[in-house]
Amino acid sequence: MKYGVLGTGMVGKAIAGKLVAIGHEVMMGSRIAGNEQAREWVSAAGSSASQGTFAETAAFGELLFNCTSGSGSLEALGSANPEDLEGKVLVDVANPLDFSQGMPPSLSVVNTDSLGEQIQRAFPDARVVKALNTVNCRLMVDPARVSGEHDLFIAGDDGAAKQAARELLESFGWAADRIIDLGDITAARATEMYLPLWLRLIGTLQSADFNIKVVH
Amino acid sequence: MKYGVLGTGMVGKAIAGKLVAIGHEVMMGSRIAGNEQAREWVSAAGSSASQGTFAETAAFGELLFNCTSGSGSLEALGSANPEDLEGKVLVDVANPLDFSQGMPPSLSVVNTDSLGEQIQRAFPDARVVKALNTVNCRLMVDPARVSGEHDLFIAGDDGAAKQAARELLESFGWAADRIIDLGDITAARATEMYLPLWLRLIGTLQSADFNIKVVH
Repeated sequence: MKYGVLGTGMVGKAIAGKLVAIGHEVMMGSRIAGNEQAREWVSAAGSSASQGTFAETAAFGELLFNCTSGSGSLEALGSANPEDLEGKVLVDVANPLDFSQGMPPSLSVVNTDSLGEQIQRAFPDARVVKALNTVNCRLMVDPARVSGEHDLFIAGDDGAAKQAARELLESFGWAADRIIDLGDITAARATEMYLPLWLRLIGTLQSADFNIKVVH
Repeated sequence: MKYGVLGTGMVGKAIAGKLVAIGHEVMMGSRIAGNEQAREWVSAAGSSASQGTFAETAAFGELLFNCTSGSGSLEALGSANPEDLEGKVLVDVANPLDFSQGMPPSLSVVNTDSLGEQIQRAFPDARVVKALNTVNCRLMVDPARVSGEHDLFIAGDDGAAKQAARELLESFGWAADRIIDLGDITAARATEMYLPLWLRLIGTLQSADFNIKVVH
């Protein structure tokens, strides 16, 4: 299957690299075609990998990943042709982190809205699934880095899209019974607002190789 | 030891009841002396239990619990005589929940501030420890309600106060190695902003008998 990964940072590279490793064709998208990060990734990733603009990447992928920074996500997706988002599953991995007030970052969207909802509202023909935004990018594509059971959350308005995302996450190594469906896209508020605790735990544990398990 | 529990709601009753059950003298405080909830609690809890105003409760307790609603915490603590807070450990269990926009509640303080910090700033002579605000009140005082390992977070500026709170939490049944010290009181931002995920999980699991375990 063909995947479009928007974003050339650590998250985009981790997701795109995993998709190539499990046998998919992947285009990595950036603002400007020929982005150095994307070109380097392509030359390392081999013949199933390609790079292009955000618009070219949205056209290429049958399923899309938003791995851009939260502050740039709406603009990045807005540069796609609307028909190239129509009906497509868009896995939104981004968090609305605001570094303008220093470290740790704040969230630019909270409480009664979320980046996931902003994206779904701005692109109503895409089928947004919020996922993977609660773990470090290495863990996203290799959950066994942390031993034992731990959980991933998904949220979105479209059940079939969530099912497609769920199967994809299972192909990344996530156990089916550890993927928790929190309901519609408004649950993105919950997983995005978990970020301050996640960031604090990185400091406490001096490592990003951790995750939470919901025990009940 | 003598404890003062500010607040007569479910959280206050759970904490005050547990403290009496493990052998302490407890005063439950409310805005007006003779509050019906507090009187009922006293008559059920027995001779170690008493009730009074917030000010009387702050004077009575050698260690204090803030179990008032987040929106009323600063006012409740403000009605204590300042010398009755001086040097005392104040375990802040409250969350800054804002129900004015309907359910689920929003948070009235986020990002670069928290209720825990507001309380510490307003009452600099108290030694605030943020704790217990990430679990349901029944679980606060009976962690074994949820089987298996799961975690509690503490945060505060005063190491000795956190040690006192930690020992108290252990007397509530929390395992010493499952109490995670997130650092200074600014970490209250992290545990308070976890609330939207906690509220969402209640809906998903149809139960508040759950908690998270940090797996690493």
